[in-house]
This record gives sequence, C-alpha cells and structure tokens, in this order.
Amino acid sequence: MRLSELSERSGVPVATIKYYLREGLLPPGEAVSATRSEYGQEHLRRLRLVRALVEVGQLPIASIRRVLAAADDEHEPLHLVLGTALYALSPRVEPAADDPEWERAESDVNALLGGLGWRVDRTAPARGRLAQAVMTLRRLGHPVSMDDLRSYAESAARRATTEIGSLPADAGRLAMVEAVVVRSVLYDQVALAFRHLAQENESAHRPWPHLPPGS
Amino acid sequence: MRLSELSERSGVPVATIKYYLREGLLPPGEAVSATRSEYGQEHLRRLRLVRALVEVGQLPIASIRRVLAAADDEHEPLHLVLGTALYALSPRVEPAADDPEWERAESDVNALLGGLGWRVDRTAPARGRLAQAVMTLRRLGHPVSMDDLRSYAESAARRATTEIGSLPADAGRLAMVEAVVVRSVLYDQVALAFRHLAQENESAHRPWPHLPPGS
Repeated sequence: MRLSELSERSGVPVATIKYYLREGLLPPGEAVSATRSEYGQEHLRRLRLVRALVEVGQLPIASIRRVLAAADDEHEPLHLVLGTALYALSPRVEPAADDPEWERAESDVNALLGGLGWRVDRTAPARGRLAQAVMTLRRLGHPVSMDDLRSYAESAARRATTEIGSLPADAGRLAMVEAVVVRSVLYDQVALAFRHLAQENESAHRPWPHLPPGS
Repeated sequence: MRLSELSERSGVPVATIKYYLREGLLPPGEAVSATRSEYGQEHLRRLRLVRALVEVGQLPIASIRRVLAAADDEHEPLHLVLGTALYALSPRVEPAADDPEWERAESDVNALLGGLGWRVDRTAPARGRLAQAVMTLRRLGHPVSMDDLRSYAESAARRATTEIGSLPADAGRLAMVEAVVVRSVLYDQVALAFRHLAQENESAHRPWPHLPPGS
C-alpha cells in the first residue's frame, strides 16, 4: 500500500508517519520508484504499536526504541518483552539512602511480596512506588498494616488474572505489546476513576456525625 | 506554644509555616509581645491539613483556599466537605463537543452508574476521566463492555467501604479532610503499584506461546 493508504488504514496522519520514519521507529517502505514506497501489513502492525507508545504511553523516543528492540529480538521471551514495556511506563522512585523509614517500608513491601510468592523482579519500579506510598502514609501519621496491604494485593491479583488472560496471545508479538501498553495505561485510569466514584458513593451513604468547624 | 514548638511538633519547617501564615492558609497566632505569638492546638490541626493539601495533594493555593473554606463552613455537611477535597484532587477532563465516540462513552458511564444506583454528582470529575479512558480504548480497537466496567466497579466498591469506613469520623472536621486527602492520593498509588506487580506476577506464570518477531 502507499503512504496515503497506510495513513488511512491506521488512522495516523501522513505527517506523523513521516516523523516516525525519520526517527527510525518505523522501517522504510520498499522503494518502487524515486518518489514512491510500498508499505505492508508489517508496517501497519508496527505503526499501531508505535502510536500506542507515543500517544497512550507518552514515552520518550529512547524508551520507545528500547521497547521496540525487545519486541524485535526473537531470543527475548514474551514475558520479558511485556515487562520491558510495563517498566518503561512506570515512574521510578529513587530510594532515600540511609533513611530508616524508607528501609522499613521497603522491607515490608519485599516481605509481603515474598510471602505471597509473587514472581516480581527486584528491579520492578512498582516496588519503589509502593514503598514510597507506605512510607509517606506512616510519616504523616496514617498507620499501614501488612493486612491492609495484603487486601490490596488480593484485589489486584484477581484483576490481573482477567486482564492478562484477555491479552491477544495469538495475535503476534507487536499486537501483544500494543495491547499491554494501551490497556495498562488506560485501565489504570479506569481503576482510579472507579475508586473515586466508589468513595463518593460510599461517603454519600454514611451517617456522618455533625462536626463543628475548627474541630 | 511558640512558632519553634509548632514547627517541632508538626514536623513542618519554620520557614514553611511562615509562608502559610503570609498566604493566610494558617490564621495568625495570638500576639503576646511585639515579636512573639502564641499558637494553639487549632494551629497544629490546621497545619497538618494544609501540609497534606500542599505536599501530598500538590494543590494550587486557590484550590487549597476552597477546601479550607468548605471545612470552615459549619453549614456545609461533611459529605460535601470531603467531596470538595476529592474533586480538587482529581484531574478534570474536558468533553469533546459533538464527538459521537465521546457521547457513547459518556452515556455508557452514566448508564452504568445509574444501574448500580451509585450516588455520584453529575459534576464528579471521575465521570469524565472514566469516559475518556473508555473512548480511547475503543478508538484504538480494544472493546470495552459494560460487564468489564461493572467488575471494576464492584472491586472499587469493596475497597471504598473499607477506606471510607476507616476514616477518623470522631476526630474533627480538619482531621477528616486531612485523612481523605492523604489517603486518597497515597492509596491511589498503592492500588496502582499493586496492579503493576500483580500483572507482572500473572505474566510470569503464563505459558506464553513462542511468537516470532515481526509477527
């Protein structure tokens, strides 16, 4: 297909596709004349993934290259390819060195994940994100128990079984990575929106005591 | 107590407290001499809330004033005070005018919440956030069914019962608002971190097929 058809079928503007070509995120088409190239299904599949990484993942070009390289490496098992994409999407929290509050939170997180028997890499950015939230809650006087954390873990595990189970495992590597990126980012938003809606609904049904201002 | 003791007991640096005083977020102490003011328990409670709004909520000063005004208005029921805080923390999504995909997503969200019987204000920012995520998933070729959404709603409802139920309902209005702000923001982070950890663990246990690169 020509560039114009690639644009039409993917829904990505021609100028954007040209930008991806210049950045090497999309391989060049096959030159059929001095001014015309032919693009194939492979371009369409890759374009879908690149768009997901740019628009939904909002990743910088260097991270996009890393995810594409993992997807292109046939020796890389699918689990690690998906992990590369998920880690690229996650904010990374730098641990505070020699801070006993941080160390306690981190060791609680590691003990919890160990106790659950979860297979999660030591470098997973979500470990630090969780430890930081736990540390900050405690620092501000809001106790966090292992039982609290375990109940969040259990809810998350139920959702993950459904979410990972519904990935298109037979649609090819690029489609799998695209689905992981799009769904991870957007279902995070779905989950957060429902948290807030459910909190409002729960608060609306509570018989709150009358508390005078300034109390 | 003196300013230095207020700082020590709250853990907030003196310079930061002075900034809050200048901005009127904290009322002045009682002047006991030309250079010394006395601060009380009321200052300590309010300081805890202001710090939560600034540091954890990362709210602009105008939003902080709005939340404090709601907390100070004795005619404002607690549910609405908490709502003011939760809405101030939520990103607001502007609907796309005359976009049939947006309208479909929004009407699905409204139908779902109506069907669940949830008491959620028409202006709740989480409605728009949810509609936008649903619209984007569909636009990128990832179908979203009402059943999918309902199962997220049910998980969220269970968590909200525990979270709202554990708020310190007898600790006073300022402490309640402080707890809502701190916990809403930080337990969002806890929930997201566990989502990602659970996804990694689930993926690690799947017998993924071998998919050749470029597929």
